[in-house]
Amino acid sequence: MKLCTFTADGHTRTGIVTGETVIETGIEGSMIDLIRQWDAIKPELEAKAASGGGIPLTSVKLEAPVQRPGKIFAIGLNYADHIAESNMGTPEQQVWFTKAQTSVNGPYDPIEIARGTFTNDYEVELVAIMGKGGKHIPAGDAPGRVFGYCVGNDVTERMAQHATQQWSFGKSFDTHAPMGPWIVTADEVSDPHDLGIRCFINGEQRQSSNTKHLVFNIWQQVEHLSRGMTLEPGDCLFTGTPGGIGAAMDPRQFLKAGDVVRCEIDGLGHIEATMVAED
Amino acid sequence: MKLCTFTADGHTRTGIVTGETVIETGIEGSMIDLIRQWDAIKPELEAKAASGGGIPLTSVKLEAPVQRPGKIFAIGLNYADHIAESNMGTPEQQVWFTKAQTSVNGPYDPIEIARGTFTNDYEVELVAIMGKGGKHIPAGDAPGRVFGYCVGNDVTERMAQHATQQWSFGKSFDTHAPMGPWIVTADEVSDPHDLGIRCFINGEQRQSSNTKHLVFNIWQQVEHLSRGMTLEPGDCLFTGTPGGIGAAMDPRQFLKAGDVVRCEIDGLGHIEATMVAED
Repeated sequence: MKLCTFTADGHTRTGIVTGETVIETGIEGSMIDLIRQWDAIKPELEAKAASGGGIPLTSVKLEAPVQRPGKIFAIGLNYADHIAESNMGTPEQQVWFTKAQTSVNGPYDPIEIARGTFTNDYEVELVAIMGKGGKHIPAGDAPGRVFGYCVGNDVTERMAQHATQQWSFGKSFDTHAPMGPWIVTADEVSDPHDLGIRCFINGEQRQSSNTKHLVFNIWQQVEHLSRGMTLEPGDCLFTGTPGGIGAAMDPRQFLKAGDVVRCEIDGLGHIEATMVAED
Repeated sequence: MKLCTFTADGHTRTGIVTGETVIETGIEGSMIDLIRQWDAIKPELEAKAASGGGIPLTSVKLEAPVQRPGKIFAIGLNYADHIAESNMGTPEQQVWFTKAQTSVNGPYDPIEIARGTFTNDYEVELVAIMGKGGKHIPAGDAPGRVFGYCVGNDVTERMAQHATQQWSFGKSFDTHAPMGPWIVTADEVSDPHDLGIRCFINGEQRQSSNTKHLVFNIWQQVEHLSRGMTLEPGDCLFTGTPGGIGAAMDPRQFLKAGDVVRCEIDGLGHIEATMVAED
């Protein structure tokens, strides 16, 4: 199933995307509330999806599928080509930073270049959205704890990222975590570790890889994080970006106002944003 | 005013602490909802506080004042003596990491030693809770954007903190962000940069300093973070820990099951926890 958060007629709710239409789920609350109840409501939503109807996708505004994740953790240095371009060694341990809840952005919403910044960069990533979650989840059990997947862009203000050794602030600027366009539930993703993943700037391909090249796969990621933290429904894991970031180009290419950033992953769709200067 | 979140008779709500009693605010929702409405409801709550009554503090369970902050950002290396014991130089820029929402813990609740860990450490800190928040807040405007203050313990799993250069994961373990016992509103803290701050382990004083020794003061912190992120009501800033952490002792002293950790700040009260092994 494809599940979205959308706004129409001035209010925001969850929906099922079928072809070119969206059908309201009728479930009260946010996507996190929906995920919490998933086992109980899945048959009802499948019936709704099968019954057809709905409103044209073109008549709604798609929002980030999870607008207020409790946690957004993102792994760094998790594709070999990105590690090489970053002049780093392959990490022996998983390197995690965070993105603030307030950085979440809709799939087609503009991305802001914050006042006084000029080193904004893109990083296309597969995002895993937690379902049941839990603590001390062995890698072997992790597939049953992931609710679904979407496309994400780990937008980064490089000067703020590298001003100190701690990356989380430079990864957390407003609008710098676009996600979407919807969640494809895990049962419809035959292998999340075999998906083509690409990023284009103004139509020019900058990143192109496959999630089979992840250094630490998603199950290992869930195992690692849940050793210390309870993972909860709707928590988002940004699973790493492949090579091709602007900061590693020669000369370096950062995003400027008017640039169009498109991120796509096989089977999950695409997100696309125009860069705008913060007013 | 002293504002708390408490549980009694099986439900959790906000209260006003006066002496040894707590008076329900009657405000629907969480502390974040209360902070959002503060200007409108303050006179009503002042009247309630003055009218007396309430239930004995000893008959309720105090919770973290903000149970689900949207963001918890914490600054590292922000007291000279802690910088020295960490064998680091004074940072030219503010060093920020994060603590997960799921790490929040009540002021007197046990702190867990996660399975397989043995380097858990304490860090007493003054916590600033955002009021109006906003973006691009000049330091000069910051005092008007902070709602109040409480005591926090930036509990840290040192092995996870230092396994990579990114600290946020090792700072985010469940129960590792105890806060409380209540928020003292900013108007009742004459100078947040002149407060004695102490931590005791089993009655032995380990940390003792004064917030006047902050390298970057709270107003500079608000200015810095709000350059990139919208600060929101209830967001928590852990403002740094003074020297005396267990990892810097010779020999190193980490927290073990049964240890009692007490953190106190002049005028704000204290929080106290017993360390327990995760089951």
